[in-house]
Amino acid sequence: MTTTSSEVQTKARAAREASRSLARLSTDIKNRALLNIAAALLERDGEILSANARDIEGGRESGLSDAVLDRLLLTKQRLEGIASDVRKVASLPDPIGETIDMWRLPNGLQVGRRRVPLGVIAAIFESRPNVTADIASLCLKSGNACVLRGGKEALNSNKALASAISEAITTAGVPQGAVQLVENPDRSLVGELLTMREYIDLAVPRGGAELIRFVIENATMPVLTGGTGVCHTYIDKAADLEKAVAVAHNAKCRKYSICNALDTLIVHSAIASQFLPAIARSWTSAGIEIRCDHPSLFVLEGREIPGMKLRAASAEDFGKEFLAPIAAVKTVDSLEEALEHIYRYGTGHSDAIVTEDYSVAMRFVDEVDTAVVYVNASTQFTDGAQFGLGAEIIDSTQKTIARGPVGLREITTYKWIVLGAGQTRP
Amino acid sequence: MTTTSSEVQTKARAAREASRSLARLSTDIKNRALLNIAAALLERDGEILSANARDIEGGRESGLSDAVLDRLLLTKQRLEGIASDVRKVASLPDPIGETIDMWRLPNGLQVGRRRVPLGVIAAIFESRPNVTADIASLCLKSGNACVLRGGKEALNSNKALASAISEAITTAGVPQGAVQLVENPDRSLVGELLTMREYIDLAVPRGGAELIRFVIENATMPVLTGGTGVCHTYIDKAADLEKAVAVAHNAKCRKYSICNALDTLIVHSAIASQFLPAIARSWTSAGIEIRCDHPSLFVLEGREIPGMKLRAASAEDFGKEFLAPIAAVKTVDSLEEALEHIYRYGTGHSDAIVTEDYSVAMRFVDEVDTAVVYVNASTQFTDGAQFGLGAEIIDSTQKTIARGPVGLREITTYKWIVLGAGQTRP
Repeated sequence: MTTTSSEVQTKARAAREASRSLARLSTDIKNRALLNIAAALLERDGEILSANARDIEGGRESGLSDAVLDRLLLTKQRLEGIASDVRKVASLPDPIGETIDMWRLPNGLQVGRRRVPLGVIAAIFESRPNVTADIASLCLKSGNACVLRGGKEALNSNKALASAISEAITTAGVPQGAVQLVENPDRSLVGELLTMREYIDLAVPRGGAELIRFVIENATMPVLTGGTGVCHTYIDKAADLEKAVAVAHNAKCRKYSICNALDTLIVHSAIASQFLPAIARSWTSAGIEIRCDHPSLFVLEGREIPGMKLRAASAEDFGKEFLAPIAAVKTVDSLEEALEHIYRYGTGHSDAIVTEDYSVAMRFVDEVDTAVVYVNASTQFTDGAQFGLGAEIIDSTQKTIARGPVGLREITTYKWIVLGAGQTRP
Repeated sequence: MTTTSSEVQTKARAAREASRSLARLSTDIKNRALLNIAAALLERDGEILSANARDIEGGRESGLSDAVLDRLLLTKQRLEGIASDVRKVASLPDPIGETIDMWRLPNGLQVGRRRVPLGVIAAIFESRPNVTADIASLCLKSGNACVLRGGKEALNSNKALASAISEAITTAGVPQGAVQLVENPDRSLVGELLTMREYIDLAVPRGGAELIRFVIENATMPVLTGGTGVCHTYIDKAADLEKAVAVAHNAKCRKYSICNALDTLIVHSAIASQFLPAIARSWTSAGIEIRCDHPSLFVLEGREIPGMKLRAASAEDFGKEFLAPIAAVKTVDSLEEALEHIYRYGTGHSDAIVTEDYSVAMRFVDEVDTAVVYVNASTQFTDGAQFGLGAEIIDSTQKTIARGPVGLREITTYKWIVLGAGQTRP
């Protein structure tokens, strides 16, 4: 056994050990620990920011892009934001201990399910150091221990954050092993971590497509992932065009860099000549480039819309997550064609219809197999806080474990409890 | 691409395609299809039994053990049992379409979750041909398409069964691709199947430990498994000894070959000299061999119990799933020691305590992290039908997807439905 494998093994085992008592901690102790973390992040800001400054300097030397450096950067204000998020988690209801259901069998046995933590969650993430505090606090509140493995470019920041978190939680009476940071930057450690299903109950990759694929293909424990959204909004021929413009504008323009932003607008041909100029004007005012299929290009080409960025869509523009001020437009002649397009190109994240036709709306809801299906609303609502779940760990695009916004409840499991009086099975 | 890989790909793709319309089939059509299957199994019994006879003959020639041959064997009576199980599935409530919850947000949006099928389930199983009808009917009822891959020793039986099932369901209006049998006996096809996460939503291995490990380590989609149980019953010092004997006897003797059977009896030392002779007499009457730790051996060695099969336990006897008329006995001096033993040796399947002490019972329920935790009842109750869930697909020992008895509801997922009136996110 090499020394590098020892670090992951030791920390995963310590997390497993801590998870036993963590599962039974009172809500009071968990909340006190969370408030301690928030306070520690602000009290130890000098130390954390200077560690972060070393990461930024190292990142600049190794040629990281400005966008990556910005994600990596911590400031006093950002630390205050992180601390405020941690306090928010403290204010959420504790999901643990709830009796989900319980009933009495004819033989008198009481059978029910109680919500309990999963155990140990391994989070593997990239450059954003805020994820360290984020995941640690969500795991703590849900009674789960965690093993954190951040990007090597954020190692100094993560070490400073983890040290503050560790001290803060032990002061509150949380077992010390509850939050583990893997410090060795060797990438092979991730692979090793993913084989330790005796210690780790769930792996959560947060990062780019390559990281997610690596985790899915190599993890021997369950994986919870998401965050890739090719999102459609379909404007039906029976749409209220005013609502349609508002919804399609919001879905694209409120924030275009997030996973629930509109990527492809699908338009019924019967209203294309009315609707397309209206949305094009609206989008153009927000600087959106429009990539059209042939029929929609034909409608828009003749219009005088000052500043409109219009071009023909290539085949790759459909099924593409832009995360940019760009939208593709597809024209269809029927609901069926719209459904086929979404089936073929969607990623099952968030898809919407705008229509006043009741039967069409019901069919869309029935037939689109996506995590969140909308009628007459913007796909940008896909978010745990918006849905009233409090915090959000991830937007899942998988079908098992959790689908759509993942809150605290979704990183728990249950155990069956059977209370008897000496019953035996015939 | 070889021809063998084409079969799996073609069938997995066909199942995915069928799953789209299957998800929206009415309960009436699904039930009619199930009743058709039950009828077809009996109408085509000659064909099925003669296919099975060829498997039995082949198995005998290749030297399969009597136990395996018995699992492989179909008889008219067994076919009637299978048909009856399929009719039972028809009688269960349809889990699909239920609105799990729905609420209105301050902005007027209605947000809720609707239960929908997972999509395509791949079942990989060994010699029992009854699993073919079993999994096909459970998947059908829950709106899932399935890809079945049985053992090569049961290939003729499975082909005959699948052909009967296929004809029966298409007559009822179920898409033909809904039930797919992989016929090529090449083992590498299983590996190929496990990489097809674009077609398959869940892999369910049913078989021995080696098969399960292979699927867990190689599947790139979620896996649902279980069925391995090292089950404990702890007799506390405050136990009612009459209940304790009844519960420990039933847990071991009702059926010793199933996963929820008692493997290790844990006895508090304070009542060992009273309790052990009583359970030893009871077990001896059922032919159970008793493998004792030193203190329990000391108690039992002096007793005259005619026919008692007593021996010292080896280290391997603890943490062993016997599936045989054998029980290990461990003596402890405290609840803590019992909890430690279960933590160390249990598989998280089913564990019980017998006690009249309220606080001890509550601590046991709180601290034992197992799928089903019992107070004063036999672990042999762990079963979907016993719990009132109707059919059971598997007893899961994993924490995600489902834990404990897995019924129809547990092989579904949900989608979020958001009904609006033109809302946009600020």
